[in-house]
Amino acid sequence: MNTLYDIPSGKSGHNAAFEQAIRQLAVPVCRVFGSAAQPTPARFEASAQTLNTKDSAQVSKFFPNTVKASGSKVLEATAGAAGAPQDQGKRVAVLFSGGPAAGGHNVVCGLKRILGAGNTLLGVRPGPKGLLKGNLFEISDRDVDAIINTGGFDFLGTDRTKIKTPEQFAQVKATCVKHNLDAIVVIGGDDSNTNAAVLAEFLYAGVKPDGSGVQVIGVPKTIDGDLQAGALLPISFGFDTATKIYAEMVGNILQDTRSSLKYWHFVKLMGRSASHVTLEVALQTQPAVALISEEIAEKKQSLSSIVGQIAQAVVKRAEQGIHHGVVIIPEGVVEFIPEMHVLIAELNDVLACHADDFAKLDKAERPAFIGSRLSPDNARLLASLPGYVVDMLLAERDSHGNLQVSLIPTEQLLIDMTARALQEMGAKVPFATMNHFFGYEGRCGAPTLFDAAYTFNLGLTAGSLILDGRTGYMATITDLTKGGTPKAIPLTGLLNIERRHGQDEFVIEKALVRTDSPAMRHFMAHRTTWAEKDLFASPGPRQLWGPIAMQQPISVALNTGADSLAFKIG
Amino acid sequence: MNTLYDIPSGKSGHNAAFEQAIRQLAVPVCRVFGSAAQPTPARFEASAQTLNTKDSAQVSKFFPNTVKASGSKVLEATAGAAGAPQDQGKRVAVLFSGGPAAGGHNVVCGLKRILGAGNTLLGVRPGPKGLLKGNLFEISDRDVDAIINTGGFDFLGTDRTKIKTPEQFAQVKATCVKHNLDAIVVIGGDDSNTNAAVLAEFLYAGVKPDGSGVQVIGVPKTIDGDLQAGALLPISFGFDTATKIYAEMVGNILQDTRSSLKYWHFVKLMGRSASHVTLEVALQTQPAVALISEEIAEKKQSLSSIVGQIAQAVVKRAEQGIHHGVVIIPEGVVEFIPEMHVLIAELNDVLACHADDFAKLDKAERPAFIGSRLSPDNARLLASLPGYVVDMLLAERDSHGNLQVSLIPTEQLLIDMTARALQEMGAKVPFATMNHFFGYEGRCGAPTLFDAAYTFNLGLTAGSLILDGRTGYMATITDLTKGGTPKAIPLTGLLNIERRHGQDEFVIEKALVRTDSPAMRHFMAHRTTWAEKDLFASPGPRQLWGPIAMQQPISVALNTGADSLAFKIG
Repeated sequence: MNTLYDIPSGKSGHNAAFEQAIRQLAVPVCRVFGSAAQPTPARFEASAQTLNTKDSAQVSKFFPNTVKASGSKVLEATAGAAGAPQDQGKRVAVLFSGGPAAGGHNVVCGLKRILGAGNTLLGVRPGPKGLLKGNLFEISDRDVDAIINTGGFDFLGTDRTKIKTPEQFAQVKATCVKHNLDAIVVIGGDDSNTNAAVLAEFLYAGVKPDGSGVQVIGVPKTIDGDLQAGALLPISFGFDTATKIYAEMVGNILQDTRSSLKYWHFVKLMGRSASHVTLEVALQTQPAVALISEEIAEKKQSLSSIVGQIAQAVVKRAEQGIHHGVVIIPEGVVEFIPEMHVLIAELNDVLACHADDFAKLDKAERPAFIGSRLSPDNARLLASLPGYVVDMLLAERDSHGNLQVSLIPTEQLLIDMTARALQEMGAKVPFATMNHFFGYEGRCGAPTLFDAAYTFNLGLTAGSLILDGRTGYMATITDLTKGGTPKAIPLTGLLNIERRHGQDEFVIEKALVRTDSPAMRHFMAHRTTWAEKDLFASPGPRQLWGPIAMQQPISVALNTGADSLAFKIG
Repeated sequence: MNTLYDIPSGKSGHNAAFEQAIRQLAVPVCRVFGSAAQPTPARFEASAQTLNTKDSAQVSKFFPNTVKASGSKVLEATAGAAGAPQDQGKRVAVLFSGGPAAGGHNVVCGLKRILGAGNTLLGVRPGPKGLLKGNLFEISDRDVDAIINTGGFDFLGTDRTKIKTPEQFAQVKATCVKHNLDAIVVIGGDDSNTNAAVLAEFLYAGVKPDGSGVQVIGVPKTIDGDLQAGALLPISFGFDTATKIYAEMVGNILQDTRSSLKYWHFVKLMGRSASHVTLEVALQTQPAVALISEEIAEKKQSLSSIVGQIAQAVVKRAEQGIHHGVVIIPEGVVEFIPEMHVLIAELNDVLACHADDFAKLDKAERPAFIGSRLSPDNARLLASLPGYVVDMLLAERDSHGNLQVSLIPTEQLLIDMTARALQEMGAKVPFATMNHFFGYEGRCGAPTLFDAAYTFNLGLTAGSLILDGRTGYMATITDLTKGGTPKAIPLTGLLNIERRHGQDEFVIEKALVRTDSPAMRHFMAHRTTWAEKDLFASPGPRQLWGPIAMQQPISVALNTGADSLAFKIG
């Protein structure tokens, strides 16, 4: 017996036959880096494109150094020369921040490869917390060989610590001094890149004994797909892998419904703030119903109209003898339903006002107590909800007094309300149901070739920016179907001011699904057919070899006007 | 833009880029069938091997014709000659029965290919119900081109109707006469193949006007892996695909635990009667804990000792600073815990005795009412369970007075009891949890190359058996690592008598995990290390192309003493 499955005990664990094989896959590099075997650091030049938001004036006040240095201009990569003197002697730290996403390891590998033997790459464990603690170690070429093309953030670990207090900034400074850092690379989502912008400004100068600063570069990660910047950043890494994993599962379930001929499956998909994931999975699989939170908000749809839409699909299909189907639901949809939003806001107020009286009541008395203190519309809506949802709406608030909406079992809520709507319509149709939530299983899968190539080149780009002396930028790769063009986005050019937890904060605005986007228009043009006919597409498991391994997300292809699903780097 | 994702409306729906590509994959055939491009029907000879169970004497009485015809002997395939006269003019019906499993379409394709233009293959829609209704249609070569290598049972649909009443048998006979059938192929699990045995006997003779009978051949399907017959049938089809799908998801979650560093994930896996699925997924992924129902039953483990084992793993890992892990759980584990079994049996009795009084009570009064009527041990156990489990245990019985144990959220039960056990142990360790159930998403995925090749050859074998005039056999392929040897198992040789629903019935006994099997011994030898160290393996998405596409299940390789994970047909 060979020992393919007899995994030796060891630090990494990436030793399944599959992982042994994917480590051998070659990763292509953008032409500006020269050869894939020995990439050369690129240089950067300011392009004509500047990046501003409505709050840029305010941003300039709080980020004077980095705004001045970048001139808010996007940078474009140009070919560098091998062995240039400035490409030596830097000490660079890299960390993951926030939820994992496929391809993170390849960012580290790209960084290590482009920094080469002349510089030092240090890993921070785990995440921002590790930076505060100064928990750094040197990453070796052997590490790169072990993690290349593998999924997960396990090589460094991750956490969600937000760096914002003076003490925390002091700790970061201490870590920079202790480890004699020249640069930090933050791999994360919108919040983490906001953090990177703040750190870049804070560490701009005066950190080290000679008065010099520490460079900070961000790398755009999130499976939710809500970190975007138009053509400059059509998608963050991890989205392609996550949506391909969810789309396979949803496709399998669609095939199951047509095989077993008796169930409606309600599938909730990860993605609280935006519905990019659900839209992409819908385009890949063609389910009977896919809810898009942004559309619901824009059209001010009520919960009962959403439920009515599902019930109608059930009835329409039943008329043709089809008693099965799939409904896909974005995790955060409840927060986008305007009337739910209004209800939750009033509940938060009422609960805060009457906290003491409320606490003394029996659980059974609480709905009536609260109901009588709500506006009539909200009282009616609350009364229409199943008991377990009412219980959750009246449950404990988080430390900011907010409801943990994520705890509401939206898929079960929609099942129960659809069943009731069918009853009220007098529709005598079978409605046997199952529910699912796909989330965690999509964050740490092995990256698709798209994510593997994209992230390795993001690592090469981030490393090149550091060697080119830049700070306060986010690395990006544009033209993903035409060989790939590395660019750098000034982080301050993405910052807006938003009121969060009662105070103004700089944030990178989450990119929501636009209902006028090509991807959304494609979905809207087809969904009636998908609802009424028993169609489906089953995109299957993502392939690392073979004829269909090189596909980008459908929504990205549509939104960027690509002429094919194929992507091309190098 | 190409139209890869712009699926034309149509019957099949198998038009995603992936499915277009897998249809082009060549499927190898066992050498006895000659060339893959134009396979020749095999003939069969009785081998020296006979198959009997403890109930064979009884079986002979009830199945006189088929037992006599087979002599209880296993058949072996020998090469046939192309264009033989007996290979013409037959009308063969094929149906799916029970839950879907990957590869079903390829059984149909293999059948069609081997029957060739000289015979007629009819599809039955859906399942046994379609046979009763006489809902048959002719399957064309175009159909085969459309479904080859695709997942699902959607081409024919499936259902779970059990054929047992005289009226039903008469309906089957009428269908045979109406469609002038010479043979029926039943693709199903243990119950469906029992059905096939009964049908073979019933249709042995006197069906058609000339007094001849209708042949019946079974094909072994089930993702649960509990339809086995030693070396003759090391595994049913669908198991490899389902376990590879679940193993990818569990592997992804394992990587997520090591990346996020804060959650224990409890994952329930499909498989009510046996733990083959959980064992295989454990071997593929190395989780901290994997429960094997058969071991629990054999060792008469109590619920509290199982919970204690999980709590101990939590504590042991916490001592090393590891606050995360994965626990995998077979769907049916509760039924295997002896004390739960005893409790449920007494509950069934007590509820039946006091049905009227019980029905009048408020929900809140019920546990005390029942508790006072149970034996002390059972009352204590009932009182130890979380409220929602008690509610379920006291909920409505099915039409046979049995509890729907499948409705108990075992994964949540174990989470809650582990949390309580940790508290009682005074263990101050973080224990944040998530739960999952993977089931439906594994039944209809596109088949692995193992399942695709295995099922196509099962179709070739079933068709050859029909052309060779055989009835009452189950097709099988042995020597899956040595080219594949088609054989036929006399169905009566698998039959036992079991008491079900208060009466003796012939059944094919479910093959449970044997605690002394090589796969189980391998698991037991490693699990302490997996529990205490933060190891994992991430087997990744199943590949249809590339270097690791040809792997059989680990447990099958171990149990058959294979010298590699690779399989080889042809």
